[in-house]
Amino acid sequence: MNTEQRPDIARLIISCPDQHGIVAAVSDLIAELGGNIIALDQYSTGVEDGQFFQRTVFHLPGFAHRRTEIEEAVAHRLAGPFSMDFQLTDASVPKRVAIFASKTDHCLLDLLWRHRRGELPVEIPMVISNHPDLAADVERFGIEFHHVPVDKTDKTAAEAEHLRLLEGKVDLVVLARYMQILSPEFLTSAGVPIINIHHSFLPAFIGAGPYQKAKDRGVKLIGATAHYVTEDLDEGPIIEQDVIRVSHADDVAQLTRYGADVERAVLSRAVKWHCEDRVIRHGNTTIVF
Amino acid sequence: MNTEQRPDIARLIISCPDQHGIVAAVSDLIAELGGNIIALDQYSTGVEDGQFFQRTVFHLPGFAHRRTEIEEAVAHRLAGPFSMDFQLTDASVPKRVAIFASKTDHCLLDLLWRHRRGELPVEIPMVISNHPDLAADVERFGIEFHHVPVDKTDKTAAEAEHLRLLEGKVDLVVLARYMQILSPEFLTSAGVPIINIHHSFLPAFIGAGPYQKAKDRGVKLIGATAHYVTEDLDEGPIIEQDVIRVSHADDVAQLTRYGADVERAVLSRAVKWHCEDRVIRHGNTTIVF
Amino acid sequence: MNTEQRPDIARLIISCPDQHGIVAAVSDLIAELGGNIIALDQYSTGVEDGQFFQRTVFHLPGFAHRRTEIEEAVAHRLAGPFSMDFQLTDASVPKRVAIFASKTDHCLLDLLWRHRRGELPVEIPMVISNHPDLAADVERFGIEFHHVPVDKTDKTAAEAEHLRLLEGKVDLVVLARYMQILSPEFLTSAGVPIINIHHSFLPAFIGAGPYQKAKDRGVKLIGATAHYVTEDLDEGPIIEQDVIRVSHADDVAQLTRYGADVERAVLSRAVKWHCEDRVIRHGNTTIVF
Amino acid sequence: MNTEQRPDIARLIISCPDQHGIVAAVSDLIAELGGNIIALDQYSTGVEDGQFFQRTVFHLPGFAHRRTEIEEAVAHRLAGPFSMDFQLTDASVPKRVAIFASKTDHCLLDLLWRHRRGELPVEIPMVISNHPDLAADVERFGIEFHHVPVDKTDKTAAEAEHLRLLEGKVDLVVLARYMQILSPEFLTSAGVPIINIHHSFLPAFIGAGPYQKAKDRGVKLIGATAHYVTEDLDEGPIIEQDVIRVSHADDVAQLTRYGADVERAVLSRAVKWHCEDRVIRHGNTTIVF
Repeated sequence: MNTEQRPDIARLIISCPDQHGIVAAVSDLIAELGGNIIALDQYSTGVEDGQFFQRTVFHLPGFAHRRTEIEEAVAHRLAGPFSMDFQLTDASVPKRVAIFASKTDHCLLDLLWRHRRGELPVEIPMVISNHPDLAADVERFGIEFHHVPVDKTDKTAAEAEHLRLLEGKVDLVVLARYMQILSPEFLTSAGVPIINIHHSFLPAFIGAGPYQKAKDRGVKLIGATAHYVTEDLDEGPIIEQDVIRVSHADDVAQLTRYGADVERAVLSRAVKWHCEDRVIRHGNTTIVF
Repeated sequence: MNTEQRPDIARLIISCPDQHGIVAAVSDLIAELGGNIIALDQYSTGVEDGQFFQRTVFHLPGFAHRRTEIEEAVAHRLAGPFSMDFQLTDASVPKRVAIFASKTDHCLLDLLWRHRRGELPVEIPMVISNHPDLAADVERFGIEFHHVPVDKTDKTAAEAEHLRLLEGKVDLVVLARYMQILSPEFLTSAGVPIINIHHSFLPAFIGAGPYQKAKDRGVKLIGATAHYVTEDLDEGPIIEQDVIRVSHADDVAQLTRYGADVERAVLSRAVKWHCEDRVIRHGNTTIVF
Repeated sequence: MNTEQRPDIARLIISCPDQHGIVAAVSDLIAELGGNIIALDQYSTGVEDGQFFQRTVFHLPGFAHRRTEIEEAVAHRLAGPFSMDFQLTDASVPKRVAIFASKTDHCLLDLLWRHRRGELPVEIPMVISNHPDLAADVERFGIEFHHVPVDKTDKTAAEAEHLRLLEGKVDLVVLARYMQILSPEFLTSAGVPIINIHHSFLPAFIGAGPYQKAKDRGVKLIGATAHYVTEDLDEGPIIEQDVIRVSHADDVAQLTRYGADVERAVLSRAVKWHCEDRVIRHGNTTIVF
Repeated sequence: MNTEQRPDIARLIISCPDQHGIVAAVSDLIAELGGNIIALDQYSTGVEDGQFFQRTVFHLPGFAHRRTEIEEAVAHRLAGPFSMDFQLTDASVPKRVAIFASKTDHCLLDLLWRHRRGELPVEIPMVISNHPDLAADVERFGIEFHHVPVDKTDKTAAEAEHLRLLEGKVDLVVLARYMQILSPEFLTSAGVPIINIHHSFLPAFIGAGPYQKAKDRGVKLIGATAHYVTEDLDEGPIIEQDVIRVSHADDVAQLTRYGADVERAVLSRAVKWHCEDRVIRHGNTTIVF
């Protein structure tokens, strides 16, 4: 168990126009409430007219019971005066994550293994797939598997079923090589962040078939990118990326095998960081503390 | 001094439709001529209808004097029967390389240092720049520096001067952050391969300002790409690429500094490999042995 | 399926004192027998008095039936005249691999999963463990699991049982974080190569507790090493290594988690390369083609 | 110019037993003095009985003139109550660095060239070498070069001359492949930190000839380590490390060439971080913010 997963640990994530005294105001309030800061990261986009971001982790005995009081204190003492957006989370409460998959197993299994091993601070209430192939693999981990076939000409019914399954049960959706484009309506209705793993080093090779495109272009490294899903395909804010060296001798099948290792590593890091409240969206980019 | 730079070492680079008996025919001929194979790399693009490539390094006493005889033997005994393209080089003869630079020094100096240290099997008869800034740096290495200003509205005069300077004196042109687009006429007239270093992980961020584009897109790795120059900007065959990890906290100036380290490393590897006859163009890709 | 796993593909691995004409002699014999070379790698340790190594992959219709004839031809025409050690293998016959594990699952599961995906050219007839914990995980893959408890004060009985289980059934033993030292008698009696994954960048942090040692020394990278097991603990020939960046903020538990990802990647590459006959032992080092 | 190199930027580095309210006390004091925090990193070695470290960068108009007042405020308001060690630096004042070199140029030239490009926040008042070979290279950068021959049987005279040259003129000594062991007396008398680059991935291959040792052991990666010099050879606190992949085909000369690239990169990062007050020694390890 990671330090931050103990009871009575809270995380305060803030974003506001950069100005004097933010760190002092935040740390004063936490001290005044009886908390002790155990980690603090901050970043400003610029000296003048910058946007300021801070992630503060603090220990505060009885946090869970005092949460409303603390949230109100932050709202009145910090968010108002500093024109601040904020989020206050209880580090001992794991995020609830639904994983969408298709037929490809590597990203899904890697997340399930890491979850079982205690590496990810999450609960996984369900896996949803448009194919039944991975049902047995998932159920062995004691996790619900829902097969929701997708009609390629009309995804309305499938997405309605997705929303019904997800409703009120998840804090994050992870597309673990789901390979289906989600409608703007679904993105809005889901109401939670959605993380996708794209099998290329974005913005290179947007869209389908990136390993074939990589082979055709003759690149010497292939990569993978975990990003938040937006309405623009493969254009959302990037959370994490990595690459692996390849050579002329690797065919597309081999690129796909090498790429699978990068994909699962990148996706698991992105999910972990998101669920530890380390990732803050800023326009179409991310701050990762 | 590298093994392959000793006297009496030859390199035979071949390319032909894949078929039975190529390796045997090549090694037989070399043995028959009195040579001893010291390195051999081969690659075929496919089992059926593939294209075959082979780089063979062999020791043959008196090679320099027997070169014409050997070239003819290869032509008659191998190139004809196997419909083969071939190139036969004397490994003790360094390639003559002209470096084009602008105001940025890191790629240029890295090549000059490595050359002085004996890491690159090249001669550098000249450096050409459209700015005079780096003249003193270059001349300290005992290398000729030519300042050829470029009129952005009409590059004809500058390119004519380039061709005059290069004529018959170089086997390779290296664009070490030269930052000028060369005309198709120049590429044809130069008559030697041209290697460019592009300051991004191609095909991401083609064209000008790649570090700004990388910052705007929020990528987590930045890279550099050494490629042969073709008429299509930043679209030529890739020889080598590499990347370095960056974070949200790095501004464009910092990305540029980090990128400089990757650029110089990638370019020096590409130049070294080319000059060791390790790089074979195949369509718009490269085989790198 | 990888190109080399098709029927009628053979691999010839040779080692001999370097001398003129080896490549020609090998390729001639293969051509004469009706084979076609599809991949060839060679390496010599030095120009004078060097040791020569070559891996040749060739297609030869009916190889499986003509194997004895071919083996004899190699013995008489090559091995004798060139004082050569050689090994001839049928690429379509997967190596039989027994995996030894303890309680830690990541290396074991990664091998089983890659095997299921067809990434490893192996059969896995059994998993042997000194603890019963991973039985269910293994059996889900349809693989036999043998629980052989080890008495720390006297391993004789356990090793006898190991030898009984392995006898005639395996070509390779893989220690996937088995954490037990094997006796010299076992190494001799097993009669097959044994690959171990050590959880450090050898030769740093030999022996037990490498992550704690790494934390104490304050290293900025941690690593893993796959090597052949010899009588000298953690001193055998290294097949593959890799590292991952860590920081002062990572405690030993976190180093262990990061290290697990490196261990599984390094071990799976070593096993794959060994089973593709790419690894040749040379003294206490390896040639990896 | 980096943000932190502007005028009126101060850095406060603190270390103390972990306890409640440190961040608040520091940020309060800075706010009260009229400063604005622009970067803050902190780390605690443990929740209980941990040691706490913090690097705070703040903008405070007129810092240079108010330095004594601020230092006293920190001493009385923070250092006393929290049993704190602290260091207060003016970010606009570059550290003065003496570089010691021998005959090998790559680490030295890389530092001089980065300094010229403005990448390192340092002044370089002198280079000292036991050989005259690099004098011209150094003087071209407008930097003093002192040739101080070293008698291997008695280094007393040489070290006395070193101390005379350094006295009062430097804040840091960098051993850029100096290849001489410094006496404990010199370390004490110099009175400034000394950074060395060791040409291996420590703690592997301590002492002389690490590339030969690496070749003999057959490692698949070679590395370099920048560390503070202590009385125990190659045992001081590690600041930075990196590695590069090598193969069986690389001889010791090639390992040395590859290693040179890693050495210069690792050393330049270590020097930069030290001179930005990012490196805090903690026992025999370092915190690098």
